[in-house]
Amino acid sequence: MNKFEKIIASIVPPDLSIEKGALARQARLTKPKGSLGRLEALSAHIAAIQRKPEPVAEPGVVFVMAADHGVCAEGVSAYPQEVTAQMVMNFVVGGAAINVLSRFAGARVVVADMGIAANLSSSLPIYHKKIAMGTHNMAVGPAMSRKEAILSIETGINIFEEELSRAPFAIAATGDMGIGNTTASAAIAAVLTSVCPKAIVGRGTGIDDNTLARKIQVIETAIDLNKPDPNDGLDVLSKVGGFEIGAIAGVILAAAAHRIPVIIDGYISGAAALLANSLAPLSREYMIASHLSADAGHTAMLEDLELEPLLDLGMRLGEGTGAVLAMMLCAASCRILNEMATFETAGVTNGK
Amino acid sequence: MNKFEKIIASIVPPDLSIEKGALARQARLTKPKGSLGRLEALSAHIAAIQRKPEPVAEPGVVFVMAADHGVCAEGVSAYPQEVTAQMVMNFVVGGAAINVLSRFAGARVVVADMGIAANLSSSLPIYHKKIAMGTHNMAVGPAMSRKEAILSIETGINIFEEELSRAPFAIAATGDMGIGNTTASAAIAAVLTSVCPKAIVGRGTGIDDNTLARKIQVIETAIDLNKPDPNDGLDVLSKVGGFEIGAIAGVILAAAAHRIPVIIDGYISGAAALLANSLAPLSREYMIASHLSADAGHTAMLEDLELEPLLDLGMRLGEGTGAVLAMMLCAASCRILNEMATFETAGVTNGK
Repeated sequence: MNKFEKIIASIVPPDLSIEKGALARQARLTKPKGSLGRLEALSAHIAAIQRKPEPVAEPGVVFVMAADHGVCAEGVSAYPQEVTAQMVMNFVVGGAAINVLSRFAGARVVVADMGIAANLSSSLPIYHKKIAMGTHNMAVGPAMSRKEAILSIETGINIFEEELSRAPFAIAATGDMGIGNTTASAAIAAVLTSVCPKAIVGRGTGIDDNTLARKIQVIETAIDLNKPDPNDGLDVLSKVGGFEIGAIAGVILAAAAHRIPVIIDGYISGAAALLANSLAPLSREYMIASHLSADAGHTAMLEDLELEPLLDLGMRLGEGTGAVLAMMLCAASCRILNEMATFETAGVTNGK
Repeated sequence: MNKFEKIIASIVPPDLSIEKGALARQARLTKPKGSLGRLEALSAHIAAIQRKPEPVAEPGVVFVMAADHGVCAEGVSAYPQEVTAQMVMNFVVGGAAINVLSRFAGARVVVADMGIAANLSSSLPIYHKKIAMGTHNMAVGPAMSRKEAILSIETGINIFEEELSRAPFAIAATGDMGIGNTTASAAIAAVLTSVCPKAIVGRGTGIDDNTLARKIQVIETAIDLNKPDPNDGLDVLSKVGGFEIGAIAGVILAAAAHRIPVIIDGYISGAAALLANSLAPLSREYMIASHLSADAGHTAMLEDLELEPLLDLGMRLGEGTGAVLAMMLCAASCRILNEMATFETAGVTNGK
């Protein structure tokens, strides 16, 4: 059994008795029963995942996985491929949206080069895990080999575990950077949800109608040509995926194995979550859906995963930005459960 | 001109040129144009309100106005009236949901007794502004006199201004406590939005079907009996309102006059926002809708105000809990605008 299989084998369901206990405590807090809505179920879910009657969601780590995509050669993005490396430099100096939001939320940003099509200085404070200079163009053949698909997932697992041993964290969030990766994500989602490419594809960074039509055609071509097997997550990842998407799936699997809640960002992370769910269905029970992306098709991904997003702010940036915003809601929900007075201790009369 | 009229006369529209400048800056930040969705418009709105190209939403203050309602005698709530005073004690010791969330968000909690039906110790660190021991029962006559309605609004204005002189804050949030106040709020909203009571009333703290039917009947009776004039906000407040609802309207008007954004909490604050809008339509442009309450009818209030809530988490607690959660989104949006790198400074290639 290799690392990847071992991690999957170690995933067991969250503890429902802890969840029940947390919900019972919610009912004793000084507020009308159920009046904090989804925050109540959220903290109880985190409690069940962590096996802690007093769950915590601070501090958090956001894993921003970056890689390039050969399919960019088909002209599917509004941005040139060089932007992936440029944005990684921006992450390093703290100028990107994910940096600003993570500073605000008190979250640690962890960046990995999973396969950027540029040589980055080894002195950059990121994980240097380049599998290749971007994937192959999935419109002309498989994006990567099956071996590389496994490697990308295992690298995600390893990065997660290294960060955990470096400094403990209570909650994880996923993020991505990779010009062209909404194309790969749409292809993955189309295969795994059985929704047609046209219905699941979005405008990504903001492409026009012509580029959108091309993007749909490219995805259809890639699926027809490579015939990814919907019952084999590794086959889907290797045929139409991306190195950063595999790494995000690895982070999700590792989080589940280590009993840490993992907040799923938007469209790209949604595709990675579909892969993780396909490889290890129990991992789904460790996921928290952060937000509904403005990119069409994200709804279908979340419906397939039976996850309901916490936020709907019309965001479509990626990087983990939606996940880190939702991290604050997770932290707030846990604090509510742990810090609020009960009717008994506060001397407040309970309702009918 | 009295205080109340002076404040209304001093409200002018937010500065749209500042808003335009903020949106232009958003387009230069290192992210696809528009990809942060509603966060982009949110910070631009705050910039326009504050007349600051670099808006700030920290620190914030939440004004929790508390009072009792004579209409409780009709049996419209799941909780006895004594809970209002008990919860104020809970606010003082920091055990309520609003305390927990405000500590997390770094917001100051300001509590006022606007008319609680109990004698509170004068040593409590709250504003002691009791207008009466609760309103009169609106099912048998006006809730308060027109003079008391003006006093409740002016007290809200004064509390806002005293807090501002005590320690500056960048953003305000509204909150409430008052057993029976969803009944008053539903009556206000029915009159001001012309939606029938049955469609705008909700279950409040969680009443059963029989109590809900009674609540609707009580509201219909109060409106038929008192005939509040929908074109006169003061008449509506005095006939079917509450002291804390008037005070919240006062906070909203003061915020608008002082060019400070004001985050509107849920159902009760929504009714107060309708009153503020009725008294000074320009005040609406200073409002930020925090969340959609689970209480039926809140949608109709927000539609009437043409406000779109930031959050929809099934909450229905009041106290300002939804507003303080949204305060974090406001702060995040401002930090994004102020702290993100631009394409030029970060050396990132912009898209097509």
